[in-house]
Amino acid sequence: MPQTVAFTKGHGTGNDFVIVADPDGALALDAEQVAAICDRRFGVGADGILRVVRADAVAEGADAAAGGAEWFMDYRNADGSIAEMCGNGIRVFARYLTETGLAEIGEEPVRIGTRAGIKTLTRDGAGFEVDLGPWTVDESDVLVQARGLPVARPGLGIDVGNPHVVVAVASDDELAGLDLAHHPLLHPAPVAGANVEFVVPADPLVQSGVGVVRMRVFERGSGETLSCGTGVAATALAVRHWAGPAAPDQWRVSVPGGELSVRMRDGHVLLAGPAVLVYSGELTLA
Amino acid sequence: MPQTVAFTKGHGTGNDFVIVADPDGALALDAEQVAAICDRRFGVGADGILRVVRADAVAEGADAAAGGAEWFMDYRNADGSIAEMCGNGIRVFARYLTETGLAEIGEEPVRIGTRAGIKTLTRDGAGFEVDLGPWTVDESDVLVQARGLPVARPGLGIDVGNPHVVVAVASDDELAGLDLAHHPLLHPAPVAGANVEFVVPADPLVQSGVGVVRMRVFERGSGETLSCGTGVAATALAVRHWAGPAAPDQWRVSVPGGELSVRMRDGHVLLAGPAVLVYSGELTLA
Repeated sequence: MPQTVAFTKGHGTGNDFVIVADPDGALALDAEQVAAICDRRFGVGADGILRVVRADAVAEGADAAAGGAEWFMDYRNADGSIAEMCGNGIRVFARYLTETGLAEIGEEPVRIGTRAGIKTLTRDGAGFEVDLGPWTVDESDVLVQARGLPVARPGLGIDVGNPHVVVAVASDDELAGLDLAHHPLLHPAPVAGANVEFVVPADPLVQSGVGVVRMRVFERGSGETLSCGTGVAATALAVRHWAGPAAPDQWRVSVPGGELSVRMRDGHVLLAGPAVLVYSGELTLA
Repeated sequence: MPQTVAFTKGHGTGNDFVIVADPDGALALDAEQVAAICDRRFGVGADGILRVVRADAVAEGADAAAGGAEWFMDYRNADGSIAEMCGNGIRVFARYLTETGLAEIGEEPVRIGTRAGIKTLTRDGAGFEVDLGPWTVDESDVLVQARGLPVARPGLGIDVGNPHVVVAVASDDELAGLDLAHHPLLHPAPVAGANVEFVVPADPLVQSGVGVVRMRVFERGSGETLSCGTGVAATALAVRHWAGPAAPDQWRVSVPGGELSVRMRDGHVLLAGPAVLVYSGELTLA
């Protein structure tokens, strides 16, 4: 029987999501349905889907429920694959919870379950800030090839709940000239894949105590997007790593879809910026 | 005051539209609003907007009303510019009229007003057929340059209510290798611009009495789209023109988003194929 699904469309700096409220975990969306919904011509169109489900209503949310999270974010990439986390997605998720009255998120952190563990969200001006938790740096050699890069360049592995490889490119022109319609190649290729960020540090790098960088991102399962929240965090962490011990703990990262703030505090990385709901709709699933 | 607009999203072979019912012509959408709605990350996302308005409710529909059309299709491109006609759009428009009960469209033709005059629509199997009316061929020299084309190639001007330039390319590989992220260049450039179709005739061209071609299109104001209805008609007309007097009057045109049928009858060109409504939504205009 055809099933009607109410949804809301939202975005964080142009990284866009179909949000589906499914508090009781009754909605089984298979990979094919997710991909059909995310298709930008034949479906609704989005970088991914955020299913809003009570943590205690789904098996995968059990740890989150035990840890005090009321809600679990079931995030899927546009191709239907499962992703651990999405730094813009969870901020849009927070916006949705507050706008629909499912949760109050203010200065007091609110816990949200994800496949990368519990994340805490707070309001931050007109947007939300997510504590992405601790990160790890992987300095093992990895080379990145991309169309428009004259030579393969070394990347730095950063894990912030999901895996990233960050590559510095030579200039804004080189960044603009990258052809990210094609998947960048990593050598060696990470088993689980990785999002790849191409970054240009500003000159000077630190302005009024804030590190400033510009980046473009190619996301596993989605291709180039206008923004990737965890990629923005990974970008700031990589440039901070390269800059050495004197580097600041406050960063501003420009992406094609806007600007996000990143800060490091007590070994955690936090991401802040806008999160917007655009419209609501109703869709009949095939 | 913010204005809430109900809309429906639909497509014909992947050429997608936001449909807004505005029977009394009360909704003034400026170019900026249209572009914001059609933005695929920050808005709803579409190749264009179809405003459904009674012909006698708007000045631009006066001729259509006088000619017996109840409804007028106000079509806008994704960039907010005005377009004369849209062959997929008007078939999706017909689907919308029938599904919402605003009109009955069966075997008896129904008239719909457009900026390119009155068009008649009939049901055609699971889809709709539109009579695009007479066409004109313009044999004056025009050269087309596009990234991925080894040399500039001659194009043929076809007008089917809106202007097209059709270019034959050498092979399916050459067609697939075209980079239509960049605007093709026309020499001389038509004053009003033109949609550009790149076509590969099948081998053999005529199969069971039907001419078979494959094409990709770059639309004025939208960029590459998965399909363009009038472009499909122009494609069939151009290849028929090149094939000479023995060419058939029935054509099948493959586009990236699917397949459409074209036929020539009594000096008119008719376009048939699927037209689908995908979901409905509600949007607050800024």
